[in-house]
Amino acid sequence: MTSDPYHREIYPLLVVISGPSGVGKDAVRKRMQERGCPFHFVVTATDRPQRPGEVHGKDYFFVSTAEFDRMLANGELLEHALVYGQHKGIPKAQVRQALASGQDVIMRVDVQGAATIRRLVPEAVLIFLMPSSEEELIRRLRRRRTEDPAALQTRIAFAREELKWLPEFDYVVVNRESKLDDTVDQIMAIITAEKCRVNPRKIEL
Amino acid sequence: MTSDPYHREIYPLLVVISGPSGVGKDAVRKRMQERGCPFHFVVTATDRPQRPGEVHGKDYFFVSTAEFDRMLANGELLEHALVYGQHKGIPKAQVRQALASGQDVIMRVDVQGAATIRRLVPEAVLIFLMPSSEEELIRRLRRRRTEDPAALQTRIAFAREELKWLPEFDYVVVNRESKLDDTVDQIMAIITAEKCRVNPRKIEL
Repeated sequence: MTSDPYHREIYPLLVVISGPSGVGKDAVRKRMQERGCPFHFVVTATDRPQRPGEVHGKDYFFVSTAEFDRMLANGELLEHALVYGQHKGIPKAQVRQALASGQDVIMRVDVQGAATIRRLVPEAVLIFLMPSSEEELIRRLRRRRTEDPAALQTRIAFAREELKWLPEFDYVVVNRESKLDDTVDQIMAIITAEKCRVNPRKIEL
Repeated sequence: MTSDPYHREIYPLLVVISGPSGVGKDAVRKRMQERGCPFHFVVTATDRPQRPGEVHGKDYFFVSTAEFDRMLANGELLEHALVYGQHKGIPKAQVRQALASGQDVIMRVDVQGAATIRRLVPEAVLIFLMPSSEEELIRRLRRRRTEDPAALQTRIAFAREELKWLPEFDYVVVNRESKLDDTVDQIMAIITAEKCRVNPRKIEL
């Protein structure tokens, strides 16, 4: 291959931000959006009820379970999961359109969903958000909805299992609760570096 | 491998900054040093005469040709080159010591030297500085020492050959003359991203 080195082709990236439950994936995504990072942030479809303050089409696409099932049956979802009795899924068309327009796409999915995306889209950039310690992870899980000690233990055990998926990922970024901007800086650096690769990733979707 | 995910090992990096003659490798290195980037910048040994303003042990180690030959014969140089009748070489012990102390090492070598380092140290991070256009490269070459049109043509032809080594590199950063800080930002991003790799590079030297 002797293509003109002065005119390298650049392809948009598909960046998957994942990590165990409670690590703060949503907080990271929100901070990225607040900082005006110029990416397409995928809006996930879900059949769970809309919570106060949540905006349809921004936080999630809130759909009925019947509508979700229809999307799933029609192959409209790149990836989907049933988490605590609620469905979530990544609309494939949305991702395709953003990539086709040349935008980098950021999606936030759980650890197993990231592994699914790795199989479907080997050239995706997989970033694993890591809590700084198990103590911090437990603190975060405790703050969320979970007062029942048995349920908390289940979530902790589940998060431990999720950590085992780390080797499937490209990058790991420690997300310290008090240092959200450091986390975002590192994700931005990863994206910049990926754009400098001599052998760029080309997404086929 | 089931190592503790909360205690990942981090290894110092060996970063090679290269690119065709005239692209501005020294200017990039100097700007990185001015910005206080916390790396060990390798000081190259050379037998060329010290120029006014150059500091021994900072810009170069200025040695006699006999001393250079002795270092070479003793295997003290990681890489060496004869460029326009002058020897340059990377002292191996200096690199080893910096890495052993946990410092990231930055070295600036010509394109063929970078290819040599790739063979000797496969885990080195190779960054290719790219001129923004052939016109800019020619402008830069013209400013340097070369008034003789035939010599300039030789240098241009040589730089064109050097561009062919690009596929051997990991990353390419376009070095626009008026945007030196952008170049440094991208190099810093590459180093940050490399430190986030799930499978870190481990330098054996």
